[in-house]
Amino acid sequence: MSRLESFIRRLTAQRDILDMICREMPLGEGPVIELGLGNGRTYDHLRERLPGRRIIAFDRVCQANRKSMPPDCDLILGEIDETARPFIGINAALVHADIGSGYDDLDALNLGWLSGLIVDLLAPGGIAASGVPLSHRELHPLPVPAGIAKDRYFLYRRS
Amino acid sequence: MSRLESFIRRLTAQRDILDMICREMPLGEGPVIELGLGNGRTYDHLRERLPGRRIIAFDRVCQANRKSMPPDCDLILGEIDETARPFIGINAALVHADIGSGYDDLDALNLGWLSGLIVDLLAPGGIAASGVPLSHRELHPLPVPAGIAKDRYFLYRRS
Repeated sequence: MSRLESFIRRLTAQRDILDMICREMPLGEGPVIELGLGNGRTYDHLRERLPGRRIIAFDRVCQANRKSMPPDCDLILGEIDETARPFIGINAALVHADIGSGYDDLDALNLGWLSGLIVDLLAPGGIAASGVPLSHRELHPLPVPAGIAKDRYFLYRRS
Repeated sequence: MSRLESFIRRLTAQRDILDMICREMPLGEGPVIELGLGNGRTYDHLRERLPGRRIIAFDRVCQANRKSMPPDCDLILGEIDETARPFIGINAALVHADIGSGYDDLDALNLGWLSGLIVDLLAPGGIAASGVPLSHRELHPLPVPAGIAKDRYFLYRRS
């Protein structure tokens, strides 16, 4: 399968999972946390699907299209494992993490902190969606929508 | 429509158009020219669909994933409107251009040279596919595959 085809399937999985969360899963009252703003496309999608919900976006540097720029107060730049620490305990309803490098070997080395951080940001019962697999005793895998291949995108609920 | 949804539709249109070209349209013998390598995903797709065909990729700077890196001899870096000039007359069978900035107003200002360059690179009867509309008396619009919205992706044949 070409990388273009694989990317289309990944983005489609991302959209379908976010849509399932927003439409079918009762979310708590906390904010949404977007780890990895990137171009801002999923930020834009979440903003459209969850009107009025605070979305706090993190990235190393800002690369967002101006059409998807969060307000200054909700855009946190710098190394995410450091900049997110002050937000521990914020009781997020949903954390969406899309911070893979495109290299599985590098991600395995560099994202060891991600699962623990997500647990610390989520409210009890909160939802995590991630482009890389997470591993933590408080994160319980949930089924993804039909048609999404195993290992394409990942969904969890915190204890 | 969210920017994520719009992007999925754009990539799907891109894939479907490239697949239609590779499967259904008899291509001449010349090389394929990729204007805007980016991450290298469409380069990878074309390489898979057109095995053995030379693909010459241009970009301002190299941002390609190492899985989609062209050989040095087929990767031309720098301002495309300048670096492509020595290739004028190469009689390309196909030119694929994906160099929009994500800002329509900027693209309209900055890509005035694109249509003429593509004509100069293509063999007579050659095919151009582009993420931005092209305009040149020698480029004749072709129908795109069913399901692709008007103005999502563009296909032409050179006189």
